[in-house]
Amino acid sequence: MSIRIIAYIIGSALKVEAAFLLLPLLCALIYGEALLPYIITILLCALLGSLLCLRPADKAEFQTREGFVATGLVWIVLSLTGMLPFLLSGSVGSVCDAFFETVSGLTTTGASILTDVEKLPHGLLLWRSFMHWIGGMGILVFMLTLLPFAGGSQMNLMKAESPGPSISKLVPRARDTAKILYGIYAAMTVLTIMILLLLRMPLFDALCISFGAAGTGGFSILNSGCATYTVAQQNVITIAMIAFGVNFNFYYLLFIHKAGLALKIEEVRWYLLIIGAAILMITINLLSRGVYSSIPEALQTSAFHVGSIITTTGYATTDVNLWPNFSQGILVLLMFCGACAGSTGGGLKVSRLILLFRSYTRELASFLHPGIVRQVHMDGKPVEPAVLRSTSAYFFIYMVIFAVSLMLLAPDTTDWITDYSAVAATFNNIGPGLGMVGTVGNYSGYSAFSKLVLSADMLIGRLEIFPIMLLFARGTWRKF
Amino acid sequence: MSIRIIAYIIGSALKVEAAFLLLPLLCALIYGEALLPYIITILLCALLGSLLCLRPADKAEFQTREGFVATGLVWIVLSLTGMLPFLLSGSVGSVCDAFFETVSGLTTTGASILTDVEKLPHGLLLWRSFMHWIGGMGILVFMLTLLPFAGGSQMNLMKAESPGPSISKLVPRARDTAKILYGIYAAMTVLTIMILLLLRMPLFDALCISFGAAGTGGFSILNSGCATYTVAQQNVITIAMIAFGVNFNFYYLLFIHKAGLALKIEEVRWYLLIIGAAILMITINLLSRGVYSSIPEALQTSAFHVGSIITTTGYATTDVNLWPNFSQGILVLLMFCGACAGSTGGGLKVSRLILLFRSYTRELASFLHPGIVRQVHMDGKPVEPAVLRSTSAYFFIYMVIFAVSLMLLAPDTTDWITDYSAVAATFNNIGPGLGMVGTVGNYSGYSAFSKLVLSADMLIGRLEIFPIMLLFARGTWRKF
Repeated sequence: MSIRIIAYIIGSALKVEAAFLLLPLLCALIYGEALLPYIITILLCALLGSLLCLRPADKAEFQTREGFVATGLVWIVLSLTGMLPFLLSGSVGSVCDAFFETVSGLTTTGASILTDVEKLPHGLLLWRSFMHWIGGMGILVFMLTLLPFAGGSQMNLMKAESPGPSISKLVPRARDTAKILYGIYAAMTVLTIMILLLLRMPLFDALCISFGAAGTGGFSILNSGCATYTVAQQNVITIAMIAFGVNFNFYYLLFIHKAGLALKIEEVRWYLLIIGAAILMITINLLSRGVYSSIPEALQTSAFHVGSIITTTGYATTDVNLWPNFSQGILVLLMFCGACAGSTGGGLKVSRLILLFRSYTRELASFLHPGIVRQVHMDGKPVEPAVLRSTSAYFFIYMVIFAVSLMLLAPDTTDWITDYSAVAATFNNIGPGLGMVGTVGNYSGYSAFSKLVLSADMLIGRLEIFPIMLLFARGTWRKF
Repeated sequence: MSIRIIAYIIGSALKVEAAFLLLPLLCALIYGEALLPYIITILLCALLGSLLCLRPADKAEFQTREGFVATGLVWIVLSLTGMLPFLLSGSVGSVCDAFFETVSGLTTTGASILTDVEKLPHGLLLWRSFMHWIGGMGILVFMLTLLPFAGGSQMNLMKAESPGPSISKLVPRARDTAKILYGIYAAMTVLTIMILLLLRMPLFDALCISFGAAGTGGFSILNSGCATYTVAQQNVITIAMIAFGVNFNFYYLLFIHKAGLALKIEEVRWYLLIIGAAILMITINLLSRGVYSSIPEALQTSAFHVGSIITTTGYATTDVNLWPNFSQGILVLLMFCGACAGSTGGGLKVSRLILLFRSYTRELASFLHPGIVRQVHMDGKPVEPAVLRSTSAYFFIYMVIFAVSLMLLAPDTTDWITDYSAVAATFNNIGPGLGMVGTVGNYSGYSAFSKLVLSADMLIGRLEIFPIMLLFARGTWRKF
């Protein structure tokens, strides 16, 4: 284990964070708010970052282990420093709450401990939403566009931070892949902002909402969530959320004029099919139970929340606690399903579910034709056994972490559905759940211990388990 | 697909069921109750069985497919005929309720739709409990001791009906294995009955309670469950339940004087460790929350319910709805854990969890030493990749069936914890859950549709998914 390289990566990440903090600083300047919280944090990050980078690691090679451990640590360190503006401004009183809110921002969860977000200064509101944008595509992926690591090492960082069962390099070099990903990401974000501005949304709202939709975060800047926006604005947000949940390979293939290939990506097809089916079922359920009387209204609200939950964004326009059980059940299933691999969304990911389903049908087929070993296919190509093994192991440990988290919350409340959905909503990086942590509730009712458990769930969920688990594995810190 | 062989297997099973029905008939005779319901059912089963066996299939060879399909069908047919005494006696009014109760009996679940079991005639009470005993070790495994199938074919039946990730033949011939298993099973049941009689439990109670404990069923013959039995009797039931949840390999090794090997079975060690840890945690929780003030009482009650739930029996001496969240949470985890493979218990099985955990740690290790392919070991031997694949696929489809069942119950109630635990308690063949289906409640509140869903869950859970799923697979009914 090379501590020098890990220190260098963490240091670089801190310098990048310092740079990113200039945006909320600028915002605070414009609105005439206190600047000191940002300035202190920026100086601290820059200083700490420079110290950690004192011994440069140019062209250094490192292994999967270093890549994963560095990624886990970077996310923890950035959460610890990113919370300083909340504390220094006095907007959040306790360290635990500020940590929860920052982790929630970076991991694109959007779960909040604030009971009145409108009291927050504009600079902090923007920082919350901007963290979604940074965490969405990944801070290490961003760093890859700058740092001079060797190709194999770059892939080890990218593997650790990018969601999905296996990572697909768009182009041979990881750095170029990172540049293309961030290029598409930035362009789509700007497009969303512009359309919302055209629909007469105020600039500040358009920025925050777009950052949240792009990173599939979901922090709201209004106590009423997205309910006060016009129907047209809500529909644009719906489309934006769903678009950012699509595998970015899709956009890259469109970009290089290979629309035929793009449309054949099985994960994207299933993702859109699931969204369509869920919207339809919820719309019918809402109409038949009389929650809405007009078809367009039911359809529009259902589409907004389906898009919000499957992409793990978490924006809301209504209180889904008032929806019938069946619709709530569909939303809970979508919480676990999640968006596409290679997108900014959380959850299990559609491609993992496809692989798991096909592993199951292969097993069923083995009873019909024993002795014949079949391969699982995806996008017309056989899937490597190692990917299937890893996906199965992922699904199991995912369920175990879910169950353990639920147990750790047990002493805190008497309401199972709140706990259950709180874990589902943080672990899958969604934000709001059901019950007391529903779309009109928040996480302020939990004890400090429970908030730390849920913060851990957010980090573990965003980094897809292994980078955080490796920090606690015996062999990790041994030299060999 | 050979329909002739499947018909022959179903026919034989019906004849065995007719023979088993002589016991409740005898009981009804002793207590002077109506005999006709049993006589009609016995004649019908014998007639139908003989018709299906008209074209014998002596020494016939059949494949995994036939074995699995026959097993799935046998369990459905036996449930449909086994419910006749309930209907013919007028004790249960609706077909759906009678089917639910019979499936619950055969699958060793013990979930009941009866609000007052004490109204039932003795013959029916004995039939309910005796079904647990028949279903516990398996009716096809019993038939193997009688039927003249070839060795490979016998294994195909045994694989389909015996729980666990892989089946271990105790001795080379499947028929001899079946005989040994039923020998141990019968001897241990008789021992339990005798000890309970020594502790002055009435014979009828001792028979029913022992059948339920042996099959890990859990139907109660009193409205108060096991609460009225003495502490000594309850402790014997606790030990019996835990003993029948142990992998029967353990007893076989003890029997052939290989205690050293028996004590090294990893699954049994983990099983006992989990039980010990769960009892300890719940006892501390119950004492600290003031549910009980005396340590022996807390320990004894905790041990009874831990033993009852992990073995998926479902007997109860108190209302666990009144226990604190943490203790309830432990019980819910135990519901999924289940007993050992090769026992009469349900659930995921301890050995599956061990395999899944080791698959996960292997995955974690692969990040530390990429390129090195490790093997997962169990009991000192490497586990075949096919078993790991099958176990992973099992875990995934298990969770999917759980989620789908929960969705199908959604229109029926407004109480998530009742639905959640109802699915967990039927799918894992436990019986009582939490909320309205808790230890003092029952399943009478569900609609006919929901009862059918839960009946399907019981069958799917008992046969470990694949035999039932194969009935609905495309390729199954095709000739090739």
